[in-house]
Amino acid sequence: MTAFLPPAKGAEQEEGEAFRPKFDSAGLITAVACEAQSGEVLMLAHMNAEALQKTLETGKAHYYSRSRQSIWLKGETSGNVQMVESVATDCDQDAIVLKVRQQGAAAACHTGRVSCFYRTVKQDGKGGYALTFDSREKRFDSGEVYGKE
Amino acid sequence: MTAFLPPAKGAEQEEGEAFRPKFDSAGLITAVACEAQSGEVLMLAHMNAEALQKTLETGKAHYYSRSRQSIWLKGETSGNVQMVESVATDCDQDAIVLKVRQQGAAAACHTGRVSCFYRTVKQDGKGGYALTFDSREKRFDSGEVYGKE
Repeated sequence: MTAFLPPAKGAEQEEGEAFRPKFDSAGLITAVACEAQSGEVLMLAHMNAEALQKTLETGKAHYYSRSRQSIWLKGETSGNVQMVESVATDCDQDAIVLKVRQQGAAAACHTGRVSCFYRTVKQDGKGGYALTFDSREKRFDSGEVYGKE
Repeated sequence: MTAFLPPAKGAEQEEGEAFRPKFDSAGLITAVACEAQSGEVLMLAHMNAEALQKTLETGKAHYYSRSRQSIWLKGETSGNVQMVESVATDCDQDAIVLKVRQQGAAAACHTGRVSCFYRTVKQDGKGGYALTFDSREKRFDSGEVYGKE
């Protein structure tokens, strides 16, 4: 059982004051975490109803790992807990934006970077595309934190 | 055929300079559009390879509508075209962040609002959750622009 009301349609969903998160067929909703002060997008992940409820109850971001098929407290291993300042939802309530204050090394990405979005797509001049690094700075050593593979 | 290289694994995907967008089993990648100047999250949508390519080629955001099963130029009907200033991808290249300058009424949401994320989730004091409106301002009349249903 979920603690949330089921989604409605049309104006009730879009103009209402009832929170009716719309989970997809896999039971997930997309969540974007942004740095509360700067607004910078840090990461995109998914939540199931339990992760969303834990996030709202504890004020710490919880996500659902599709690969591990389990919920996780962000920062449980790395210490980079995300303290949630606000949770917003969109018009049809199938996405979530978290404003967070990062703890620990203040790095959202498992590679050690502040944000997962550290590369920009550019034309490569040969009709294709390449990535340029906006930041190579790593705030922690992912091998040390998560163990070498 | 897609213009993009297939995804790789591990460090090649996460630390490389090759753009290898990872589309899901439905052929889609999640895209978050942010206002270029403020960084405000405007909307979350999906792109197939064609929509992503058209976005990169034209500098105007194109998305894929799962309900209509077709790609759309954002703002084609409303005039609220999103001029793309940059396209970033995340560590495993399965998400995209666009920085855009909004044209027309500068409203990303089909309800007429600047952003789709106009409501914040709050505890309702009865063990559940409710939404409060951050903004009720509508920059265009969606009934006039899209036609009454």
